[in-house]
Amino acid sequence: MRSVTEKSVNCTGCENKQARYTHGGDWCGDGSIRLDFSVNINPFGLPESGRKAYIDSISRLTRYPDWDCRALRQALGNKLQLLPEHIFCGNGAAELIDRIVRALHPRRAVLAVPAFSEYERALRVEGCEITYFPLCADKDFVLSQDFLEFLTVETDMVFLCNPNNPTGRLIDRDLLFRIQERCEEQQIWLVVDECFLEFTGKEKEQSLIGRLASKTIVLRAFTKIYAMPGLRLGYLVCGNGDAMQRIFQAGQCWNVSVPAQSVGIAVLSEEAYVRESVACVQREWEFLMEGLRTEGFGVVPSETNFILFFSRETGGGICGRFAAKGIRIRDCSDFKGLGEGYYRIAVRTHEENEEFLAVLHKLWEV
Amino acid sequence: MRSVTEKSVNCTGCENKQARYTHGGDWCGDGSIRLDFSVNINPFGLPESGRKAYIDSISRLTRYPDWDCRALRQALGNKLQLLPEHIFCGNGAAELIDRIVRALHPRRAVLAVPAFSEYERALRVEGCEITYFPLCADKDFVLSQDFLEFLTVETDMVFLCNPNNPTGRLIDRDLLFRIQERCEEQQIWLVVDECFLEFTGKEKEQSLIGRLASKTIVLRAFTKIYAMPGLRLGYLVCGNGDAMQRIFQAGQCWNVSVPAQSVGIAVLSEEAYVRESVACVQREWEFLMEGLRTEGFGVVPSETNFILFFSRETGGGICGRFAAKGIRIRDCSDFKGLGEGYYRIAVRTHEENEEFLAVLHKLWEV
Repeated sequence: MRSVTEKSVNCTGCENKQARYTHGGDWCGDGSIRLDFSVNINPFGLPESGRKAYIDSISRLTRYPDWDCRALRQALGNKLQLLPEHIFCGNGAAELIDRIVRALHPRRAVLAVPAFSEYERALRVEGCEITYFPLCADKDFVLSQDFLEFLTVETDMVFLCNPNNPTGRLIDRDLLFRIQERCEEQQIWLVVDECFLEFTGKEKEQSLIGRLASKTIVLRAFTKIYAMPGLRLGYLVCGNGDAMQRIFQAGQCWNVSVPAQSVGIAVLSEEAYVRESVACVQREWEFLMEGLRTEGFGVVPSETNFILFFSRETGGGICGRFAAKGIRIRDCSDFKGLGEGYYRIAVRTHEENEEFLAVLHKLWEV
Repeated sequence: MRSVTEKSVNCTGCENKQARYTHGGDWCGDGSIRLDFSVNINPFGLPESGRKAYIDSISRLTRYPDWDCRALRQALGNKLQLLPEHIFCGNGAAELIDRIVRALHPRRAVLAVPAFSEYERALRVEGCEITYFPLCADKDFVLSQDFLEFLTVETDMVFLCNPNNPTGRLIDRDLLFRIQERCEEQQIWLVVDECFLEFTGKEKEQSLIGRLASKTIVLRAFTKIYAMPGLRLGYLVCGNGDAMQRIFQAGQCWNVSVPAQSVGIAVLSEEAYVRESVACVQREWEFLMEGLRTEGFGVVPSETNFILFFSRETGGGICGRFAAKGIRIRDCSDFKGLGEGYYRIAVRTHEENEEFLAVLHKLWEV
């Protein structure tokens, strides 16, 4: 039974491993957290054009949202050089994960772990059997060619996150293309989650949006790059008309709110904001990695806007010590394939990252 | 395949019976519609407190929404005299229909028709077999006792809308209680959609919120009574802890946006606004019914904020003639159990209703 008592509320994964919420970014609490490093979003916040579109939407809250997201899909199509009919928008990318699974009803799926836990949750609700492909810590969690052997005729669906959450690793481009080919041959749905790809600066080389195939679905979000998790907006790209029809039917038609559609359209033109954010995140990412290494932590060589690190100190100790200083980090011990001692932090602004490293240094001095 | 061409866009159900969107309230178009009578929402718009809460939310769009809607469920619990753990919030009530069906996975369901089409869509996605109980036009679509005979041990789920959309009829209170008892005896999930109940002024006598049972789920929305369809906010009430856990797991945990949660909390204290809206809607409803009858239409004796009427004139004629005057009404010929010649209008403000009747009179003079 869902409960509102504080006891059952698990903000960081540190306190209660049985709680149902195991993501970052839970702000509900006593207000003592000043800096949230547990959520991987653009540290520069929502662009001004998005704030303006939000305010302007107020007069249209009394109307149903456009059920077909026509203007938003047109704007996305223009930006991505895609036909709007190959785009479907959702109440965050997280809604789309469930919608894909419900629509395409896989019986057997393969997950490379550690991975974002929503894939597994959505598949389990559908009663899908899951095979796990372990990403090895001693190979820095890089996806290996052995993965191809898991793509058999018995498989119905594969989820891959590129770059992967929580490891931050990109998939080797040639391997990704071979995986896509294998999925076409074996008629396996390949769902590639590119929600963090914009931060890598390698969108053109790495994205499957320019290589649509009949069994490929690409997931994207506004949440991360435009820093708007509170509004809920994501989309998927798929060239298979039958699948698109089933995905549409698999849920309500008013899934994307009026403000989410308006803000989405507005921020799509923020090219300089994205370019500058990405450049800054890449600089800061090196700064944080170096700082973590200096303090003696093991650091997974991330290629995006968050960093997975590990320590021999296990349990809730590290999270709790940061929380006492008003900083939230993500305990990753609940990820299948990780375990105790793994933590994830987002790359934030230089001042915030400096503060993080200063607190880290002080805590480890003691 | 989804298309963005105007041709496939079906605003009122008049033009293209094969289109996938068959609800009211599609504003996308050439801007010629001034008055939307196709959507059943409070004609007085979003209360000022809701507008203020919307604006105030702008600083929190960069955070994930509270995954557990703690403050909103607490506020709802206080208002409805319920424990917050018996409440689950959704991205509109429409999301909750899919979530209930996905979580509880009924194999056989019963629908009284005509009914809101989302029940059937959600059940069909789940592969559920549906038995239809016909509501008879010659009995003004009142739910009869014969419905009890449809509630057999083979049935897993029943959806009832009270008052029913599109007929506007309330279920006889004693019959509703007998249906609930029968559902408990036969272990049938009874989902009662009370999204329009506030407009009847009979919430206390008719609602099952005060009579929770182990197999009862009540659906409610902010959409209609607070005129906020663009923000997406609904909730369900259920006393069965196992079902609540499954409903939570059946989709993403960030389903309700930051502004929807904030506006929801704010408008819950708008008691005078609700009371005055309901009083006005009830006066206007009589005014509209009388006007329709005077023009020679058959009128179903609705008990809520919309009216189903019928005419011997079939096809798209009536909708098209209203549209040419800037007024949108809902063609109901696509509802199972209705057919050509049925139309639905919302009750709006006195000035708007006067304009509607004046246009009606002029059109029928010709």
